[in-house]
Amino acid sequence: MSDASARARRATIDDADTVARLLHDFNVEFDTESPGPAAIADRLRSLLADTSTFALLAGHPACATALVTLRPNVWFDGPVALLDELYVAPALRDRGIGSALIELLVDECAARGVELIEINVDESDVDTMRFYERHGFHLVQPDSGERAFYFSRELGG
Amino acid sequence: MSDASARARRATIDDADTVARLLHDFNVEFDTESPGPAAIADRLRSLLADTSTFALLAGHPACATALVTLRPNVWFDGPVALLDELYVAPALRDRGIGSALIELLVDECAARGVELIEINVDESDVDTMRFYERHGFHLVQPDSGERAFYFSRELGG
Repeated sequence: MSDASARARRATIDDADTVARLLHDFNVEFDTESPGPAAIADRLRSLLADTSTFALLAGHPACATALVTLRPNVWFDGPVALLDELYVAPALRDRGIGSALIELLVDECAARGVELIEINVDESDVDTMRFYERHGFHLVQPDSGERAFYFSRELGG
Repeated sequence: MSDASARARRATIDDADTVARLLHDFNVEFDTESPGPAAIADRLRSLLADTSTFALLAGHPACATALVTLRPNVWFDGPVALLDELYVAPALRDRGIGSALIELLVDECAARGVELIEINVDESDVDTMRFYERHGFHLVQPDSGERAFYFSRELGG
């Protein structure tokens, strides 16, 4: 893949099956429960029809994806974006594909008036943290001068 | 305030000035830049008219607020909620008002089909972390067995 950047593109609803397969592979690789590609694709078709979710793909055939959700925030005029998922198939890592997705992510966010992009990264994923820091993301938050932890609580479904 | 729980309530658009004043006080107390109560109130009137933001208030007169945004997520049928802000005026802390807001937050989220509530907490806020852990929030994430850090990148406005 000599020109990864040119191959990163925004996914359409027609790409839902492709994005879903990659997200499923992501979960399988990292031993996370997956509802399966078909169920993910169904949900993606609904989410990608709305403006608060978009997805990116890279590679022919697609070997990498990013999934992004937007929400309002009282401190910014535009939405805040969260990079929910970023996955590159194992055989194609370290070729700039992840970087190409991040560059397109930033462009797509800027086009939507996004002023802040957020990511949550597991503490042991040191390489992933370095990757995001190389791309301008801060672990030490500029306003507080310190790191922030992610907390979550699931509600009984 | 003997019955803090009964006094926690969902804010309406008419409460925008009240919520804004408390969010402004929050920023002033923690040396964070604030656009000022009037500008915050303007934005809140717009946000609270939509379903992806809600706010809570507690106290008569109001002395505490919570601000919550919702977004879609591919892993859940319903939206995911982020507790963006939680503030109790200094003179009225340690009286259960924050807990009353969290209890109402959970109820309001459950009523909206939310299955996951998220919070980002600064690393040095040990008391705040303990508070959320007492209320069922996890620092060590159940799926990964580890902590996660929050990363962010501002885009040039």
